[in-house]
Amino acid sequence: MAFPLKTCSSVLLFSPETSVGSGANFLYNAKAEIDSSVLLLTKRGKTLFTPRMNERQARDIFKGRVVPVSSGQLIPLLKKNLPRGKIGLELENLSALRHINLAKKLGGKNRFVDVSVPLESMRAVKKQDEISKIKKAISISRSILGNLHLKSSMTELDVVKILARQCLEHDVTFAYPPIVASGNHSGHPHHVPVKKTLGHGTVLIDFGVKYKKYCADLTRCYFLGPAKEEKKKYEEAKNIFHLIIDQMPDCHTAGDVVRASDGIIKKSGWPQLIHAPGHGIGIDVHEAPHLYSKNKEHLRPNMVMAIEPGWYGAKFGVRYENEVLLGKNKARVL
Amino acid sequence: MAFPLKTCSSVLLFSPETSVGSGANFLYNAKAEIDSSVLLLTKRGKTLFTPRMNERQARDIFKGRVVPVSSGQLIPLLKKNLPRGKIGLELENLSALRHINLAKKLGGKNRFVDVSVPLESMRAVKKQDEISKIKKAISISRSILGNLHLKSSMTELDVVKILARQCLEHDVTFAYPPIVASGNHSGHPHHVPVKKTLGHGTVLIDFGVKYKKYCADLTRCYFLGPAKEEKKKYEEAKNIFHLIIDQMPDCHTAGDVVRASDGIIKKSGWPQLIHAPGHGIGIDVHEAPHLYSKNKEHLRPNMVMAIEPGWYGAKFGVRYENEVLLGKNKARVL
Repeated sequence: MAFPLKTCSSVLLFSPETSVGSGANFLYNAKAEIDSSVLLLTKRGKTLFTPRMNERQARDIFKGRVVPVSSGQLIPLLKKNLPRGKIGLELENLSALRHINLAKKLGGKNRFVDVSVPLESMRAVKKQDEISKIKKAISISRSILGNLHLKSSMTELDVVKILARQCLEHDVTFAYPPIVASGNHSGHPHHVPVKKTLGHGTVLIDFGVKYKKYCADLTRCYFLGPAKEEKKKYEEAKNIFHLIIDQMPDCHTAGDVVRASDGIIKKSGWPQLIHAPGHGIGIDVHEAPHLYSKNKEHLRPNMVMAIEPGWYGAKFGVRYENEVLLGKNKARVL
Repeated sequence: MAFPLKTCSSVLLFSPETSVGSGANFLYNAKAEIDSSVLLLTKRGKTLFTPRMNERQARDIFKGRVVPVSSGQLIPLLKKNLPRGKIGLELENLSALRHINLAKKLGGKNRFVDVSVPLESMRAVKKQDEISKIKKAISISRSILGNLHLKSSMTELDVVKILARQCLEHDVTFAYPPIVASGNHSGHPHHVPVKKTLGHGTVLIDFGVKYKKYCADLTRCYFLGPAKEEKKKYEEAKNIFHLIIDQMPDCHTAGDVVRASDGIIKKSGWPQLIHAPGHGIGIDVHEAPHLYSKNKEHLRPNMVMAIEPGWYGAKFGVRYENEVLLGKNKARVL
């Protein structure tokens, strides 16, 4: 990877366990999970500063220069290796205390530039191996959902447990805590599953696995008993989903997708969505491009987004969600 | 809880998903898990600022004042509710960007005091209900370990999977990724389990569950085949463990525990530990009191610590670990 940022001559990234969030920018750029480490990106390449106890592991799995660090030696080593000029930091994910300490030792806060947004943006267009991992995560998630045999006597938490067992069998983890919402619970978009039997009507399941660090995010509705009205709304959700992705190739920006979705939903006689129509997805389940109307980020081929139209009423709700891969002239369901 | 800090008149805590680490200080003080929220502690009590979508949930589970927040209204609401004087923030866990933004809007960085250390310290002495939860986490962990039937044909990852399945059956989660280290792998204190059969010799398992947010942390060694030398070293580890906890009631500070442990290990003819002799444990698996020799934090009754002497050689290693509850005149294994 060529060094991608114009505002600085280097970027420092810290391993995930010391970051807010998942440490996706570290994982993406290091292409390796090594704790207690600092990754330096410059035009000349990548350097990983890691404690001596991690040195062997780092040399095995990190493609770049490895510098073992003894206690208290990180700052002198950084000083020796940092090029002149501004240092990029991800201020969204770095702790305030580390920011203060780095400023003291590396020449003041003016030496730093916040690169949280451009670093996340770099991950928005997916490479082929990333698309393959997302596809694999989706196919495992679909297969798990396809083998669910829901019964009205099960509780929402029973279903979560079945999903967890299936993840174990497939050597994957939850990409996020699954939503299992039955009956009127399905009317709350972010319902937290409880010990309530599914009974009759809608069971909304929002579930995806993480495969080799990449996420899937699917929502399906199931119906126990007749549920005529519920099934009709779910068919409408599927239809709206496809209308949205049909318009995506004509969208120039992330904000355009929101406007397209809003228009389709209005035309369908649905109430406006109470959440975004979707989100970028990759190492993080929610990442760039973020779908809000003011977002002018340009859509580009090989961006991957989850699209998730939903309808939420007092008695029940429905949502339908899949990942979509942007091509030059079309968007297709992964 | 009376407001406990003298350096400030209020403390602002942010919900776990936006923090570095587990958000333990938020969870401890809110006694509830609610996302996208801000907890204000003052002498007058606790106030939770939460988005309208979380208001109902917050009123159900949060004991204190709930203030629903519309988009863009957090800062005006905080200004209205903050008492005069310094505001405590946990700078270790807060993102640098949030720190900068809060400073801009609430009167500059000098308005803030870093309360990361005293907030963590507040959690070091456990209340009875916390001790009960830790005990339950330990008893579930022990029971899972007690029902393991290791075979030399299993891989380390097979054992991790069995542990994960058992957690599901017991409605608990891992407190941390378990270590399963067989043969020479047991000589690395932080080995990451791989697809290697256990074979003959030592199998070191470092495992604990989290029950209602509280952690257990146990290490046990198992032996496949004769393993005479390995068993002898393990017995020594158990013996050293008990010698350490016998001396703990005479320790005044966290540093004293390290010195006591160092002395016992030296007297036993063991090499000095390459890690701390243990750590405080609670909502976080590693928390105050931190056991390093310079730590002058006073030990107090009802502190809970994991104590874990270990011996690491080229061919194998052993470690023995339990939680210990400090009493006035004794320390006992939980």
